[in-house]
Amino acid sequence: MEAAVSTAERGAWVLGVDSGGSGLRVALARVGDDGAGPRHRRHGEVVEAEAVRTGPAGIDAEHLLAQVLPAAGALLAGAGAEGVDAVCVGAAGMATLGGQLRAELPGAFRERLGARRVALAADAVTAYAGALGVRPGAVVAGGTGMIALGTDLRAWRRADGWGHLLGDCGGGAWIGRAGLEAALRAHDGRTGGSPALLARAEAVFGPVAGLPGQLYPKAERPAVLGSFAPEVAACAAGGAGDPVALGILERAAEEIAASAEAVCPAAEGAEVALTGGLFRLGEPLLAPLRAALARRLPAASVVPAGGGPLDGALLIAAGLTGGGRDLPHDPALLHVPV
Amino acid sequence: MEAAVSTAERGAWVLGVDSGGSGLRVALARVGDDGAGPRHRRHGEVVEAEAVRTGPAGIDAEHLLAQVLPAAGALLAGAGAEGVDAVCVGAAGMATLGGQLRAELPGAFRERLGARRVALAADAVTAYAGALGVRPGAVVAGGTGMIALGTDLRAWRRADGWGHLLGDCGGGAWIGRAGLEAALRAHDGRTGGSPALLARAEAVFGPVAGLPGQLYPKAERPAVLGSFAPEVAACAAGGAGDPVALGILERAAEEIAASAEAVCPAAEGAEVALTGGLFRLGEPLLAPLRAALARRLPAASVVPAGGGPLDGALLIAAGLTGGGRDLPHDPALLHVPV
Repeated sequence: MEAAVSTAERGAWVLGVDSGGSGLRVALARVGDDGAGPRHRRHGEVVEAEAVRTGPAGIDAEHLLAQVLPAAGALLAGAGAEGVDAVCVGAAGMATLGGQLRAELPGAFRERLGARRVALAADAVTAYAGALGVRPGAVVAGGTGMIALGTDLRAWRRADGWGHLLGDCGGGAWIGRAGLEAALRAHDGRTGGSPALLARAEAVFGPVAGLPGQLYPKAERPAVLGSFAPEVAACAAGGAGDPVALGILERAAEEIAASAEAVCPAAEGAEVALTGGLFRLGEPLLAPLRAALARRLPAASVVPAGGGPLDGALLIAAGLTGGGRDLPHDPALLHVPV
Repeated sequence: MEAAVSTAERGAWVLGVDSGGSGLRVALARVGDDGAGPRHRRHGEVVEAEAVRTGPAGIDAEHLLAQVLPAAGALLAGAGAEGVDAVCVGAAGMATLGGQLRAELPGAFRERLGARRVALAADAVTAYAGALGVRPGAVVAGGTGMIALGTDLRAWRRADGWGHLLGDCGGGAWIGRAGLEAALRAHDGRTGGSPALLARAEAVFGPVAGLPGQLYPKAERPAVLGSFAPEVAACAAGGAGDPVALGILERAAEEIAASAEAVCPAAEGAEVALTGGLFRLGEPLLAPLRAALARRLPAASVVPAGGGPLDGALLIAAGLTGGGRDLPHDPALLHVPV
């Protein structure tokens, strides 16, 4: 991926890290100028490693470094480079569980990689940077959960991302949960039930009497709920879609648009990007979502996401090497020790 | 408590057990005739003991017996009786986790207490029996969760009771969860938020940024959610109640009435009783619930619950001693080995 960097230091090397629940990814890029302004260009393959442990003190900095430093070494050797000028680590849970990372990573990256500047970003911030770069707007990151982040380039606004019991409204677990509830309504003979969703629930989970036992004892309850979201989308698809499934996806679209509306700058020209696996549910979600965004954010344009969170981490790191405009620094969301 | 028993064996002793998540209670009663037909009358105090363990094989029969048998011995000694004629054990989880109880309790009670008949009931069945006795209708048992059970005295119908992620619609966790979601909507600036509920959430839990950390790591998540339900009711109360809180309780009332409607026999004369701590939320819930029940079940009359689940266990045990009409036997809900 190539992305614009305002006034970057040509030829500097930067490292990007994307740390999430399913694993860790590391990439190296060179800040350069291809004639269309300063950009960064990836060098070498993305290195993948296991998910970083979270302990009682939060995300485990030692565990992260034990994976990132060898990956960085291999990438630098492949590129014939000595060290990096800047590093950006984007991590799920950075805002609340990133204390160790904030305390230990800047020194470790300076000492071991020669990095002069280090940024520690919430994963929603790297998702934003990957999707929209340093441009005002809102990014909705949807998967099992759902969070919206927006900025006018002076400050961040966040909406939702509260998890499957307090919010994440319109996300995968939310949609799947609503679908299973509608299945059980049909089973019980309560109003609001969907025989079509009941049939899908029984096809996936077996007789519904066993459903609580397949959900409540598990640690990954949100993922179990989210696994039913594609069934809801399948029931809603087609010309004669199930009305209950259609209703669930229409409500999900309203929730997602409401979060985008809450964070998007009002000014003309703001961009909205949708990123994450949630939007692979396709037209049954995307059609009502486009309509809801057009109604709630008439001055904004919905654009495709330029890249993913690892691209965003590289972009933020590249920005640290120049004197140009960065995304807003923030103690919780985008921490850049001076 | 006194309750009608159709044609009971006068003078028989019966034992009732109510086993739930917060503890176990045991009571003894004598089946008698006070001139108004066969009845049972409690003897001695209710004996309380610790909650019965649930293991990989379900509810632990040994642990239950280790508490019930000494309690029964003490109650029988106090009453000057030798043994009991019948026992009814009502237990939360009986339908799905009661395999060991079904296998071991009948023999143990016969051998150790002389019981000729034993009934093993789901807690919703003892709640029904305590609330309405052997009369057709529907009982809604509401606390943190919510389940409705109905019968025409030939078979049972059940609605909801699926737990806080799949249903329990209108119960305490459902109401509290909706209240916290509305608080976070206000915090985020999303539509549908309630500043009043946000103020209550911050008064109870502190700054909302800490709320996920106070909920998700805990095993008793439904109870944490349910603890906020009285705050929702308090916000809704009074002449100028918070419209969002009022809306939550109106939706809860619709959900509860929908479950009652799904299980209540259609015939004229059916009775509906509400039982459990949920209904202590008072008028903000009860007023819309009365209206919803009147609309959905015009032929039924809402009556006060006669007693609680321990009363129901005694009533079912007393019924086993006579030749009268029992509540419907059912392999999962009310198991009475011949």
